[in-house]
Amino acid sequence: MRCEAVAFVFLFAPVAALAQWNVPPESARCPSKWGAGDERGSGNHMKNPQNVLRGARLIKAGEVIELSHVLGPGMAIQSTRVYNMHPKRTSPVPGRNNRGSNEEIMTGEFGQIGTQFDGFAHQSYGDFHYNCFKTSEIATRNGFTKLGVQNAPAFFTRGVLIDVSGSKGVEMLGDSYEITVADLEQALARQGGMKIQPGDAVIIHTGWGKLWGVGTAAAEWLAKQDPMLVGSDNAPVEVSPNPDKDLNLPGHQIFLVVNGLHILENLKLDELVAKKAYEFAFTMQPLKLYGATGSTVAPAAIR
Amino acid sequence: MRCEAVAFVFLFAPVAALAQWNVPPESARCPSKWGAGDERGSGNHMKNPQNVLRGARLIKAGEVIELSHVLGPGMAIQSTRVYNMHPKRTSPVPGRNNRGSNEEIMTGEFGQIGTQFDGFAHQSYGDFHYNCFKTSEIATRNGFTKLGVQNAPAFFTRGVLIDVSGSKGVEMLGDSYEITVADLEQALARQGGMKIQPGDAVIIHTGWGKLWGVGTAAAEWLAKQDPMLVGSDNAPVEVSPNPDKDLNLPGHQIFLVVNGLHILENLKLDELVAKKAYEFAFTMQPLKLYGATGSTVAPAAIR
Amino acid sequence: MRCEAVAFVFLFAPVAALAQWNVPPESARCPSKWGAGDERGSGNHMKNPQNVLRGARLIKAGEVIELSHVLGPGMAIQSTRVYNMHPKRTSPVPGRNNRGSNEEIMTGEFGQIGTQFDGFAHQSYGDFHYNCFKTSEIATRNGFTKLGVQNAPAFFTRGVLIDVSGSKGVEMLGDSYEITVADLEQALARQGGMKIQPGDAVIIHTGWGKLWGVGTAAAEWLAKQDPMLVGSDNAPVEVSPNPDKDLNLPGHQIFLVVNGLHILENLKLDELVAKKAYEFAFTMQPLKLYGATGSTVAPAAIR
Amino acid sequence: MRCEAVAFVFLFAPVAALAQWNVPPESARCPSKWGAGDERGSGNHMKNPQNVLRGARLIKAGEVIELSHVLGPGMAIQSTRVYNMHPKRTSPVPGRNNRGSNEEIMTGEFGQIGTQFDGFAHQSYGDFHYNCFKTSEIATRNGFTKLGVQNAPAFFTRGVLIDVSGSKGVEMLGDSYEITVADLEQALARQGGMKIQPGDAVIIHTGWGKLWGVGTAAAEWLAKQDPMLVGSDNAPVEVSPNPDKDLNLPGHQIFLVVNGLHILENLKLDELVAKKAYEFAFTMQPLKLYGATGSTVAPAAIR
Repeated sequence: MRCEAVAFVFLFAPVAALAQWNVPPESARCPSKWGAGDERGSGNHMKNPQNVLRGARLIKAGEVIELSHVLGPGMAIQSTRVYNMHPKRTSPVPGRNNRGSNEEIMTGEFGQIGTQFDGFAHQSYGDFHYNCFKTSEIATRNGFTKLGVQNAPAFFTRGVLIDVSGSKGVEMLGDSYEITVADLEQALARQGGMKIQPGDAVIIHTGWGKLWGVGTAAAEWLAKQDPMLVGSDNAPVEVSPNPDKDLNLPGHQIFLVVNGLHILENLKLDELVAKKAYEFAFTMQPLKLYGATGSTVAPAAIR
Repeated sequence: MRCEAVAFVFLFAPVAALAQWNVPPESARCPSKWGAGDERGSGNHMKNPQNVLRGARLIKAGEVIELSHVLGPGMAIQSTRVYNMHPKRTSPVPGRNNRGSNEEIMTGEFGQIGTQFDGFAHQSYGDFHYNCFKTSEIATRNGFTKLGVQNAPAFFTRGVLIDVSGSKGVEMLGDSYEITVADLEQALARQGGMKIQPGDAVIIHTGWGKLWGVGTAAAEWLAKQDPMLVGSDNAPVEVSPNPDKDLNLPGHQIFLVVNGLHILENLKLDELVAKKAYEFAFTMQPLKLYGATGSTVAPAAIR
Repeated sequence: MRCEAVAFVFLFAPVAALAQWNVPPESARCPSKWGAGDERGSGNHMKNPQNVLRGARLIKAGEVIELSHVLGPGMAIQSTRVYNMHPKRTSPVPGRNNRGSNEEIMTGEFGQIGTQFDGFAHQSYGDFHYNCFKTSEIATRNGFTKLGVQNAPAFFTRGVLIDVSGSKGVEMLGDSYEITVADLEQALARQGGMKIQPGDAVIIHTGWGKLWGVGTAAAEWLAKQDPMLVGSDNAPVEVSPNPDKDLNLPGHQIFLVVNGLHILENLKLDELVAKKAYEFAFTMQPLKLYGATGSTVAPAAIR
Repeated sequence: MRCEAVAFVFLFAPVAALAQWNVPPESARCPSKWGAGDERGSGNHMKNPQNVLRGARLIKAGEVIELSHVLGPGMAIQSTRVYNMHPKRTSPVPGRNNRGSNEEIMTGEFGQIGTQFDGFAHQSYGDFHYNCFKTSEIATRNGFTKLGVQNAPAFFTRGVLIDVSGSKGVEMLGDSYEITVADLEQALARQGGMKIQPGDAVIIHTGWGKLWGVGTAAAEWLAKQDPMLVGSDNAPVEVSPNPDKDLNLPGHQIFLVVNGLHILENLKLDELVAKKAYEFAFTMQPLKLYGATGSTVAPAAIR
């Protein structure tokens, strides 16, 4: 499908426009490779036991490296989203054991704050989501009747860190940068000639948070590797604003809408990078929030 | 410490009262075995790589069994807690890629709804939490300054299912039942003579949800096995109301306050039990909610 | 403008379709009679001191009759809306005066729950709100930049109760009923030949809650009287579902979108009706919620 | 009761300590002057029709002056409280009338944010609220079973503005100031020798927001005037921090706990003061929030 799109541009547009990305036509998007009606996209890789075993085999030292930020004072938050926690004492409770009890009411966009996992209800191309489910048909006042994040599996697979920042040396570059396919390949080569395998959790270290991110070509290249998910240490994973001024977060569409590929944002990667832990078992279980667009998560790398 | 309590009861009470449980004195509770000032309790077991490796070695088939309930319509909820999800469309977004976007604001006690993990700020004996941190000193309007659930590690260890329900045959018993030490030992024996090892995640299948649960003696026996956590398919893990009418959820204090042992409630165990998966790698990462009393979680068993 | 619409129907439709209502064209809706750019609609009546004085003159006995329902256990709520209250103790506070303090976090659609006042951001005809403000231009993730309910004035004017239920005798009618212009006129006649004056707060007693309500003709007749607002003891004020199966709450458009006339829902009218208090000073002050679509209110009648 | 307290201090304390305030003993607080079990306190004044009529007689020009701040961007907020508004589109709605609909979910301490009215559940002396209702007996996880703000009446009475700021000339004083009885009397004298009458709504203009406020003596003097409520343009009404370092907001106890006198905070008084509107009909209806400690309000002055 992407070949067709490129061909089209080639015939009718000047050379400079070759890089211009457009949403592929419906015939190229639907049904998805996982079949008509599928709601799990890249999560289907979890049905392959070899992915689990490939992850488990990487656990040799018994070390766990946590990959999520703390939700609380000082946390980064996007757009108009909020995270509020209001502690409540629910005691005293009668009884000679004098039990004290506390809980807290929280408000927030728990699919889209903190270290966050994106499901397929999150993004669309007009009315069309992944596998051509229509917003107008699946969105209700109580959540999405299809594509809700409760469909996402518990993830356990091989994780691969691509340290683009380390590969390029962040101190040498301008503070805004669109990561290219060559950047990804160069970083993998520098990490001992690593290869991405289908079903991997691919984690990209940009190093400069929101100022860097993958471009559309790198996003399409990543999707072609057929991974389980693509994560990053910044919020949109992709470069933003996009260099093409008439595109708004096209990577979200390339990943979620066109390819049914989950993304994972705002990872905390400092420890993983410092330890040069390029390969590991990746474990993460999104909350089963019925009909929701995503889930705040706390993934971990194990090796 | 518990010996003292028993001795006291022995002198002044009839035999039947020997089982009467009281909160051990401060000298018997603090400092905890993990040291004065420790905030992680049984989570410290994760610092032992052998626990991680023991879990990883159990992954042979590449099968993942999910252990959490969906949060949404029809979910069970305790007390006055709530779970509300309010979807919001945040599109249309300008740009020729016509990106649609959705998110949702949620409100709820996200530490204490759904399949839920309890931290040490959740419960106290009067003003005293685990390791004698005082509510009056650590509770603020923004959350707990000590013992917040962000201290809990990412869990990955051997999981052990104790199928009490299967062991006893639920159809033969009354509908309220206090699980005893003998019940636990009998179930383990029936499962091939399994042993709980320090650092294990112990998961108890009661089968009848809220009507069953461990008694104080079984709770103390479990704590003595030094596990990583104790989970169950009901909300309080322990029997409730307690047969001793003057005690209110003493198991919460035995686990969280006295022994610094995490608990895990409302597990979905049907698949695990049906498959007789008594031993597995247990994986779970509580959300890093600063200063909170617990976290909604989505743990999984891998084998 | 409505004449044109009627004429159109007259020419091309059979007699039975004369009652068929359609949204008037833009030229008939905009600018509103209050001028282009106006955001206050019928609230502009409050700029006329005579309306205030006409209300004040009705205060003779010094009696206040409250017109709002309690928000709490057992309250009626529409759609998927929620009202949750979570009390918090914020004490103890240091000091010899041993001050205890409590507050509560609340969640809810506070413009659209309980006894509720509707502003002009609440409803539209496609993309068009009152005075042709466009949703696509004024709706943001933080609220509406135009037509927010903070524009609504504090109301104090003559209130008129139209007791349709009392006029017709509810026990004689079927349980679904579309209130007609004749019903309104008959009820006013029965109340001593009362007249609605421009700037009045018109309160309709249906008696049977959600099962009754004004039809489109009665809604247009009411709008023609040029009142300050139209209120009722049910949620949509208008009959719902509409007898014309292809219309969904057209009264909301007649009042809010076409005529810029505020509506007031879920009034508690039992005391007012029992006392036959047909005329009174009406007082209500919507909360000044910036950019919101409405406000929960607690209006009162004074006489 | 206050005489006793003063006498006690007179006998046993040096002159400088005469001003030292302490919470009066239970015998001096309970039952309240409105009778044992009363939950309405100063709201009982609304049962006297003369209060309503005295207010109505002040309406001569038909002018309404609004007294509340907008809740939204830039609003002042106390402590850890929040105000969040999340707009939701609930359309498109089926039907040829193409109805668009919007609402918003809000979260906040709606009794204690914005221009706010305090009920008697808000404050206590230890376990004791107004009329010696005990927190431990009336506070539940769903709200207060007694003293909830739904007990407060719709207010309509004579309002009196005391312009302390105007009387003293704010530019001549330091930026922290405890308002004295003499200040209040001087301001009233300057306003034509006005007198506070029982049942009045007394509104104090401090002019400098949070930096000024009434001291304990002025608070007790105000309570002695037997008004319907005491309001101010700052959040605590009273001076804060209190000059007596061992007292924390004692005025809240003098008003709410000891005297059962409602208070009203964060009033917007600029227009009232600029127009020298010292006397007016005061109208306000707290939301009927069952079991809550207060209500966000939008009072108005009419004259």
